[in-house]
Amino acid sequence: MKKDRVSEAVIRRLPRYYRYLDDLYNNGVIRISSNSLGKKMGVTASQIRQDLSCFGEFGQQGYGYHVDELRKEIGRILGIEQGHHLIIVGAGNLAHALMCNFNFRATGFTLDAAFDVDPAVIGTKIADVPIYSMDELPAYLQENRADVAVLTVPGSVAQATADKLIEYGIRGIWNFTNMELDTHQSNVKLENVHFADSLLTLSYRIST
Amino acid sequence: MKKDRVSEAVIRRLPRYYRYLDDLYNNGVIRISSNSLGKKMGVTASQIRQDLSCFGEFGQQGYGYHVDELRKEIGRILGIEQGHHLIIVGAGNLAHALMCNFNFRATGFTLDAAFDVDPAVIGTKIADVPIYSMDELPAYLQENRADVAVLTVPGSVAQATADKLIEYGIRGIWNFTNMELDTHQSNVKLENVHFADSLLTLSYRIST
Repeated sequence: MKKDRVSEAVIRRLPRYYRYLDDLYNNGVIRISSNSLGKKMGVTASQIRQDLSCFGEFGQQGYGYHVDELRKEIGRILGIEQGHHLIIVGAGNLAHALMCNFNFRATGFTLDAAFDVDPAVIGTKIADVPIYSMDELPAYLQENRADVAVLTVPGSVAQATADKLIEYGIRGIWNFTNMELDTHQSNVKLENVHFADSLLTLSYRIST
Repeated sequence: MKKDRVSEAVIRRLPRYYRYLDDLYNNGVIRISSNSLGKKMGVTASQIRQDLSCFGEFGQQGYGYHVDELRKEIGRILGIEQGHHLIIVGAGNLAHALMCNFNFRATGFTLDAAFDVDPAVIGTKIADVPIYSMDELPAYLQENRADVAVLTVPGSVAQATADKLIEYGIRGIWNFTNMELDTHQSNVKLENVHFADSLLTLSYRIST
């Protein structure tokens, strides 16, 4: 598999395939045809076959897909089995919501620690995850593995914080700050969650 | 403009154009060439021209785009001036984070109320927004305009809650429950925020 040859659109659809297959698996479904899977997901069967062909040969003529096998295979492609570690930088409301409600384990990530500047939360735990001072971040990253940082700091310090995280060797930033981060000088992988873009798309659809 | 002819990909890029133009406007930039805008956004100038051509004629040969005019025009296309109203259904941690930190006004939405089943929060306010009992939702929607519901209830009641909202006449659902909602029987517009899909995309990119 040549990762750099896989299109952005296919990459974006992979987690959705995984989600549907995981759901089928948890409902005890053993196998599914590409037609049925496509119908469920609102895509064509040939789209599914084409997307998956980027990564190898899956499914069998007349049998369809073995749900658990395909689920595991896509999970492997997505890196779920690689045991990634993750920290949260900025332990405000949104971080709190993620820590309490988001199932990091299901995506293969282990959330080890959170960092903040507020003395009121430093030294406490949220959902069993310890919150350390931002001052402790460099030492923490020297001593512990952290692949991804969840960036939930205020927008005003987003770029400066990202620069530091890159300097400390973080490999991925999951950016919730609604700021466009400049990471061109680095090899860091950036994934933005732009709530406003999402709501504006909905605004467009309901507008007349 | 024929909305149903505009591709999903273009619709998804519009809010991003708006965000960049708004940023330029707030930094006092009067005009910008499609080359400069494209460079800033990591897309080609011809992509920008092509995207915008779905909605009319913008910009001028040799001058480029008038930042404020284009920003307002895209804002209008996105429905920002339509004065949409919005309610939150499920006032837990994530709703709390959105209420305290998300700038609904900047997207043209007014957040009027939130609803929950927890007696401990019913009757209180978060960021000046009143929290009512879920039992009051039908009466509220009969007496007040609400275009969009932010769905932040637990996944186990997501579909049932969505069904009720549709029955009560809501036009858009901003779905944070990580559940795939079945809305085929209705005209409701659905926008999903799937945190797990986003994190798995990042997992893919950092995996070897």
